Amino acid sequence: MTTSNVAESATTSNVAESAMLSGVIPPVCTPMTPDYEVDTASMTRLVDHLIDGGVDALFVLGSSSEVAYLTDAQRRTVLDTVVGHVGGQVPVLAGVIDMTTPRVLEHARVAVEAGVSGLVATAPFYTRTHPGEIRTHFRTLAARAGLPVYAYDLPVSVHTKLSADLLLGLAAEGALAGVKDSSGDDGGLRQVILGREAPFSVLTGSEVTVDSALWMGADGVVPGLGNVDPQGYVELYRCAARGDWEAARAEQERLVRLFEIVHVGGTRMGGSSSGLGAFKAALHLRGVIDCPITALPQTPLNDDEVGRIGKLLATAGLL
Amino acid sequence: MTTSNVAESATTSNVAESAMLSGVIPPVCTPMTPDYEVDTASMTRLVDHLIDGGVDALFVLGSSSEVAYLTDAQRRTVLDTVVGHVGGQVPVLAGVIDMTTPRVLEHARVAVEAGVSGLVATAPFYTRTHPGEIRTHFRTLAARAGLPVYAYDLPVSVHTKLSADLLLGLAAEGALAGVKDSSGDDGGLRQVILGREAPFSVLTGSEVTVDSALWMGADGVVPGLGNVDPQGYVELYRCAARGDWEAARAEQERLVRLFEIVHVGGTRMGGSSSGLGAFKAALHLRGVIDCPITALPQTPLNDDEVGRIGKLLATAGLL
Amino acid sequence: MTTSNVAESATTSNVAESAMLSGVIPPVCTPMTPDYEVDTASMTRLVDHLIDGGVDALFVLGSSSEVAYLTDAQRRTVLDTVVGHVGGQVPVLAGVIDMTTPRVLEHARVAVEAGVSGLVATAPFYTRTHPGEIRTHFRTLAARAGLPVYAYDLPVSVHTKLSADLLLGLAAEGALAGVKDSSGDDGGLRQVILGREAPFSVLTGSEVTVDSALWMGADGVVPGLGNVDPQGYVELYRCAARGDWEAARAEQERLVRLFEIVHVGGTRMGGSSSGLGAFKAALHLRGVIDCPITALPQTPLNDDEVGRIGKLLATAGLL
Amino acid sequence: MTTSNVAESATTSNVAESAMLSGVIPPVCTPMTPDYEVDTASMTRLVDHLIDGGVDALFVLGSSSEVAYLTDAQRRTVLDTVVGHVGGQVPVLAGVIDMTTPRVLEHARVAVEAGVSGLVATAPFYTRTHPGEIRTHFRTLAARAGLPVYAYDLPVSVHTKLSADLLLGLAAEGALAGVKDSSGDDGGLRQVILGREAPFSVLTGSEVTVDSALWMGADGVVPGLGNVDPQGYVELYRCAARGDWEAARAEQERLVRLFEIVHVGGTRMGGSSSGLGAFKAALHLRGVIDCPITALPQTPLNDDEVGRIGKLLATAGLL
Repeated sequence: MTTSNVAESATTSNVAESAMLSGVIPPVCTPMTPDYEVDTASMTRLVDHLIDGGVDALFVLGSSSEVAYLTDAQRRTVLDTVVGHVGGQVPVLAGVIDMTTPRVLEHARVAVEAGVSGLVATAPFYTRTHPGEIRTHFRTLAARAGLPVYAYDLPVSVHTKLSADLLLGLAAEGALAGVKDSSGDDGGLRQVILGREAPFSVLTGSEVTVDSALWMGADGVVPGLGNVDPQGYVELYRCAARGDWEAARAEQERLVRLFEIVHVGGTRMGGSSSGLGAFKAALHLRGVIDCPITALPQTPLNDDEVGRIGKLLATAGLL
Repeated sequence: MTTSNVAESATTSNVAESAMLSGVIPPVCTPMTPDYEVDTASMTRLVDHLIDGGVDALFVLGSSSEVAYLTDAQRRTVLDTVVGHVGGQVPVLAGVIDMTTPRVLEHARVAVEAGVSGLVATAPFYTRTHPGEIRTHFRTLAARAGLPVYAYDLPVSVHTKLSADLLLGLAAEGALAGVKDSSGDDGGLRQVILGREAPFSVLTGSEVTVDSALWMGADGVVPGLGNVDPQGYVELYRCAARGDWEAARAEQERLVRLFEIVHVGGTRMGGSSSGLGAFKAALHLRGVIDCPITALPQTPLNDDEVGRIGKLLATAGLL
Repeated sequence: MTTSNVAESATTSNVAESAMLSGVIPPVCTPMTPDYEVDTASMTRLVDHLIDGGVDALFVLGSSSEVAYLTDAQRRTVLDTVVGHVGGQVPVLAGVIDMTTPRVLEHARVAVEAGVSGLVATAPFYTRTHPGEIRTHFRTLAARAGLPVYAYDLPVSVHTKLSADLLLGLAAEGALAGVKDSSGDDGGLRQVILGREAPFSVLTGSEVTVDSALWMGADGVVPGLGNVDPQGYVELYRCAARGDWEAARAEQERLVRLFEIVHVGGTRMGGSSSGLGAFKAALHLRGVIDCPITALPQTPLNDDEVGRIGKLLATAGLL
Repeated sequence: MTTSNVAESATTSNVAESAMLSGVIPPVCTPMTPDYEVDTASMTRLVDHLIDGGVDALFVLGSSSEVAYLTDAQRRTVLDTVVGHVGGQVPVLAGVIDMTTPRVLEHARVAVEAGVSGLVATAPFYTRTHPGEIRTHFRTLAARAGLPVYAYDLPVSVHTKLSADLLLGLAAEGALAGVKDSSGDDGGLRQVILGREAPFSVLTGSEVTVDSALWMGADGVVPGLGNVDPQGYVELYRCAARGDWEAARAEQERLVRLFEIVHVGGTRMGGSSSGLGAFKAALHLRGVIDCPITALPQTPLNDDEVGRIGKLLATAGLL
């Protein structure tokens, strides 16, 4: 296996390269104080932890950031804290997650003012929406935002799957700069990769199939687990970029085993509590953030569950 | 058939009566100007149209109000406009529709400040939430809001069905004052009606089974179609309240036929566009609001579709 | 409330009456021996129990009959046992439940040979099927079966909802003689009732909203719980037919409380095990069948659960 | 990249090797005559086409075989025709697709009599089934069948996803010999691959991610598209087995483009009609089968659609 696919994206022209997002772009967790406010000190430590880990960009206000639980004031605090602290070292993307176009445009306005480099938006949710209306949604956002827009394909939350046709159409007309695919449907991901004609960043949101997504031609990864182990994903990506796929796979398999932390909450809580709680518990155990609390109404992990997360971290060489 | 079930709710003590919502409570549409701002002049005309029609309360910022499409500023405009114009003639409930507890609490704070009489909230959405977490959500809202909280059961939007067990438990502990059931599951509705012990308002959100819901013991109805024909629903309710079920059924059947307006948009648009667009087109045709526009990214009805709505209005005796 | 809607169906011409199914039509459980064979002795006792209870027809090989668990030989045993024992006292309908048209046609052939009066079929399942193909399915079955065909609307099993449009279209062309609506969507049920032009039997499959379905104009009910308490549903229907809706409601409310037996299995088993197991446990406790066993891979109810079913039976006056 | 993962499965002991299914195992289409009977002459030509193409085993009576549409007599004809014609050249697996354990056991009995080498079964469908009951289902089948049993994970049809935990548990106790994963969830596939301890064949059913599934450690592929182009999948597998992943990817990408044939039916028909119709149209265009007809109630492809399939075949070098 040569490095062709990763290398190709690295050898495109400067203009395209600047527009073309790639590499490891973790969706940054939002640390909170015990009274559920944004813990900006922990947040900046987390940002340093990620940048020191070698990530290529940051994605704030995504699902792993508990964006659905943050008030508008808290979202703004996150934006200001991260954009200010990063100071241009890496691009910062911002999620503009809300139900429909007018509400998303409001979040976009705030994010643009805060100085982010790109926006990440889902299809409308809560409403019953036609594919043609999803198109209108992304076109309107792209036309008004003045920044690259990335589609966020997350059927488990949005209850709509963005089809390859829809994504490729919006890519061709320049309305979308890329997609974060958290659908788990790697066949669809591949259809987009092979079908794209213009530069269009394809980023997988699946923590456990990054090597294969890169192998198919994906440009990068947005791994929630990358909060816990940024070096792991950076190493995985670099191995792939230099064509050492065996090493990429070995690293990926270690991360697959680490990913078990998201299941320790089991069926006594919702999937959001279990997954986001695990990331924060691990960050707390690793000393990155002060408090592992998650926003209401999520169920906290108990001591036994946190203990099991600790063991999985130790096995992965992270404690 | 006697009037017992409806009459019973009318003969409870004053205290309970004041807390116990009943009758016709339309979810008020949000008229917009051609540039998508809240049209406050049309909004107050619509409020007058509803109060003149004899409704018992108003529900603003519900799904039929396009709440999912309104910015926070627009939501506030709606609250101020309606609460101000109503001036205490009837209770005004406000939807506090958002993804999770912290965001819902923000909307609740604004609605309380605006002077509403009660809040209507869904279970969390977008996130993956456990029933225990839904309980925490409603309990937290009830504890902090200082106003009666009504659960909004709308699986088509929220992708969770509120079980009778969950509702009855929250009713028993005083966290919920009632439910607006838009699930279409009248068996579940009946389980709640028969299982409630404390006063607990059961309101159906289904436009087409109001007579039978009242017959089962429901306390009222929250009909989107009530924007178009408030007199119809008020007449239906009054017939039921005085035990004239034949007349109630005849009125209901007329309204079932009128409800066909929500389907004229067919499959070329989403269900939200078709339903909300039809209500607004009908209000425009009836001269209540100035402009039938719906928020982005909804698809507008075309002339042919509006023409068919006009015919259905004429058949129903409304044009 | 007059008896008009029920009475109307009773005063139509003889021809229409013979074609028009109405009243109480229980989906007959399939009693089994401890080694999972059809217990024909218990089966005939159950048939007598139902006919003595006053039911208007029998529906064998429906979901409550565990049709999904019966081999073809067992299905044939059921048909022969019941048709033979009934001897024309009441009509016997047969479910022809399978994935697609060719397999359904095979079951139809066997049922016709056995001498049943009508067939009950779902839309195709397991396959991904277009509404136009569902139409072809029912048309083909109707054309070849030589017996009235009733559509079985059961989205929880079939994962397709039969729309009012589709049903009314097939009714108009004579392909369907009626519908058993187990969708729980009483708004849709009403659309069919008000939209039908030709004679078309609308039967509700919901045990807990029979009074209201009859009130809307439904012709009858197919209640799984009718196995346990046929007299209850017959009484409910007769009250409605003579216009005593108060009494119908009181009887319905007693049956709603009895229906709680289907929930005692809780979350430790599938919904099929819990519901079908409860019907059989109740029939066993009432002395109608010899053994309450359900087919594999269903989970049996334990002693505690059976004890709770006994208490609910006693409360309902059935033990 | 070394050939380690593929090679490892090839170098295990003879005993394990005989039990361990790997390579290319197409789900064999069922050609029909114009009057919808099994066309045994075309069927044997298709078998020769596949064996000549180099496939490692055959899977009859799977979803791509239209198993859901075949009567029991037709299923038996398929079994006898294929097992007889193959004469032991390659293993033949048989789908035993039905709703529940007793019905599946009947199909198993017939398949065992016909002389197949293994059975492929889904979880129960149509019924509402608990994970513990799914376990009972597979255990019962394994205990009684006397042949290796492979789980068929096909949520789009069965409406249940088989979890990695469930599969690994059944693998550990010897109840399952492998899984055909058509869920499209390659993250889950990987969890099974990394979690298995006993020999357990992991076969992907996704036509478009075969290279990456093999890269993750999967043992083989069950591609519906393999009917049309067996050589393509055999070449892909062989490239992977000898460690030439670049060539594997190039072949896979050619097949991704060919796979577009399943979408030419578009939204005017169901997904089954479009996919199965495309495979048969392509086999007819390539001269392998006499008639491209699909079973009722599927919608046939029209001339224009068949023309587009022809062009895609030509582009892929197959016409």
